[in-house]
Amino acid sequence: MTITPSIDDAIDTAAPLNRAAVDRAFALHVGGKIEVTSRASIDGPDDLSLAYTPGVGRVSQALADRPQLVWELTGRSNAVAVLSNGTAVLGLGDIGPEAAMPVMEGKAMLFKQFGGIDAYPICVNARTVDEMVAVGTAIAPTFGGINLEDIRAPECFEIERRLQAELDIPVFHDDQHGTAIVALAALRNAAEVVGKRLEDLTIAVVGTGAAGVAVAELLDQAGVGRHGSGDIVGVDRAGILHRERGELTPTKRWFVENGNAAERRGGVREALAGADVLLGLSGPGVVEPEWLGEMADDAIVFAMANPTPEVMPELMPDNVAVVATGRSDFPNQINNVLAFPGVFRGMLDARATNAGIETKLAAADALAALVEDPLPERIIPGVFEAGVAEAVAEAVRRSVVRLGHVRR
Amino acid sequence: MTITPSIDDAIDTAAPLNRAAVDRAFALHVGGKIEVTSRASIDGPDDLSLAYTPGVGRVSQALADRPQLVWELTGRSNAVAVLSNGTAVLGLGDIGPEAAMPVMEGKAMLFKQFGGIDAYPICVNARTVDEMVAVGTAIAPTFGGINLEDIRAPECFEIERRLQAELDIPVFHDDQHGTAIVALAALRNAAEVVGKRLEDLTIAVVGTGAAGVAVAELLDQAGVGRHGSGDIVGVDRAGILHRERGELTPTKRWFVENGNAAERRGGVREALAGADVLLGLSGPGVVEPEWLGEMADDAIVFAMANPTPEVMPELMPDNVAVVATGRSDFPNQINNVLAFPGVFRGMLDARATNAGIETKLAAADALAALVEDPLPERIIPGVFEAGVAEAVAEAVRRSVVRLGHVRR
Repeated sequence: MTITPSIDDAIDTAAPLNRAAVDRAFALHVGGKIEVTSRASIDGPDDLSLAYTPGVGRVSQALADRPQLVWELTGRSNAVAVLSNGTAVLGLGDIGPEAAMPVMEGKAMLFKQFGGIDAYPICVNARTVDEMVAVGTAIAPTFGGINLEDIRAPECFEIERRLQAELDIPVFHDDQHGTAIVALAALRNAAEVVGKRLEDLTIAVVGTGAAGVAVAELLDQAGVGRHGSGDIVGVDRAGILHRERGELTPTKRWFVENGNAAERRGGVREALAGADVLLGLSGPGVVEPEWLGEMADDAIVFAMANPTPEVMPELMPDNVAVVATGRSDFPNQINNVLAFPGVFRGMLDARATNAGIETKLAAADALAALVEDPLPERIIPGVFEAGVAEAVAEAVRRSVVRLGHVRR
Repeated sequence: MTITPSIDDAIDTAAPLNRAAVDRAFALHVGGKIEVTSRASIDGPDDLSLAYTPGVGRVSQALADRPQLVWELTGRSNAVAVLSNGTAVLGLGDIGPEAAMPVMEGKAMLFKQFGGIDAYPICVNARTVDEMVAVGTAIAPTFGGINLEDIRAPECFEIERRLQAELDIPVFHDDQHGTAIVALAALRNAAEVVGKRLEDLTIAVVGTGAAGVAVAELLDQAGVGRHGSGDIVGVDRAGILHRERGELTPTKRWFVENGNAAERRGGVREALAGADVLLGLSGPGVVEPEWLGEMADDAIVFAMANPTPEVMPELMPDNVAVVATGRSDFPNQINNVLAFPGVFRGMLDARATNAGIETKLAAADALAALVEDPLPERIIPGVFEAGVAEAVAEAVRRSVVRLGHVRR
């Protein structure tokens, strides 16, 4: 297939990005990035009679008699649906299922490359919670797990909760939990670097969308904040989340009920004053560099907004001791790909029935442990370091088996 | 993965089939028969930034701006959903979506091998027409076509009709139309062999389920029966379909309204008396060999029941001039794989918006034309003959383009 004039037009409109780089990205996408291939060839009637009728009929009959054999005699045990409705694609917003497809294909590539998993992009026309739950429930028999992707808040919370309640396979919204796992792992090592106890950290979570809520909840489960002398303070567009903020969504209410013990009021600056950690999940321009100077000594700043961090690393004041971003061109990249391939590999290998909080904690601990001697510029492994997914998978598998959340 | 004791049990219960053959079929299925693979590798940050963020964001933005680019910049233009709810799997009946999976995986292998198509098995928990239409409509943005498979009648008719009305991609129930295309192609050549005009044939369709109805409708569209001096007589379990048969489903009523011009009454034997053609889509024991002796001279018998034909070829009386079955161990195998890979290849290449009746007629004509000099034992190409799918695809593509049923 050649690049058509219409693609050339599209490339032109993608300016002001470097034209050559844009060309390479577009060229890679022509015809799609993944394919479905056979694990055996059908070269004659004998092959056909084994892989298809009549041989396949005997296998289907065996499955009808013993349904649990589906995990051995089909690809289900290695198959994950990457399910999206395209309502919150990267930073692009609600661009729909077709426009979301390149992201899901890319995700499928990463699932295969890092986890050996067969991931099927399923981009759907389904905007409401009910529609998403219906389609997720319907397609579930084909898959060993469902990775929800790029679904907007607040719908994503209810979709995940209801699907997981309905199904006996793990349901995992990567935008939330992948980010949370990597952030917790990185924070564990960053705390070690600056010699502070995780439990005692006062953390400002700036940006309380899907990822911000998931990060806060996982940190809480890991003992951060209220379990020691620390605190988790959520900040949305309207400022710090506190008891007088009026009507809040259930997820934002979480921050009021479980965090902000010091009853802070104000905006981002007030949330950061004296805090040990900034977890930025917002966008550029939300945090002024000088406010970071008002944080505690040896402050930790995770400026995770993509593609532009809340504050660029070179603008950090001197009291900031550890910096992480979502980008590969700075040290300490907080990238979901460190988590999801291993998490699903472990859940599939264990035949997990759900993606529980313990699974996520185990994944974060394993990921943190891969960095033997944390340093300011090395609190998390690199995406391409060998053995990351394997270590995460093994920890997740053990956790699932220990808890008994496995299919019999 | 090794074969576990539970699979051994299943193999044992598959007796009385030949144990070695059963072992080979089961062995082929361990871990599934297909996988999702990447068309490029991600070996470092540069690859990652092209295939995933940030590069993918530029492609998604281009799709948001120009939705039609989804056909060039994603795999959609080569992707087909093989959608089943497992309610009518082969001859096994309503065994459910999980047990249907080996069939759908096999189908995906055939789609790739013969049509170069990426087919995604989607086995769903969705039993009603409404549920199937909802899930088919939801997943449509991911695919360039939907192949419905192993869905029971009468639901399959309404599911296909409503999905095709709803969607601008082709929807094709292979159990119906694949069979119909191959049967029409074979019958065209069989008529030539016995020197009868297609239009003048009197045809008994024994078995008026999904396939029987589709075969009859396509034959009718091709000018068989009522358009000449011929006739199409449908026979179900209760006998010949005629005006006094009381309440009939819409599809069975088709036979009364469009066939049986001679107002036949009785059972299979009465339908066959003097008929030129038996199209058997029922099962063994439904047709007695001696009834075939009461058909016209130079009779044509397609005994398509699987895996056991209505009458075995060696039991045909002398007046039967041409015999076809569904099996590979006899001449003239009526096998859907002669049709569906080429049909979908042609529809995808043309960017067809539907799978119209003209498409099916074009496919049947192309398939028939591949046999240059039909003989009693060669009325249809063999499944593994070179160029079959290509010829069918080209005919389908031209038909779709000529009719203008293409996406702009």
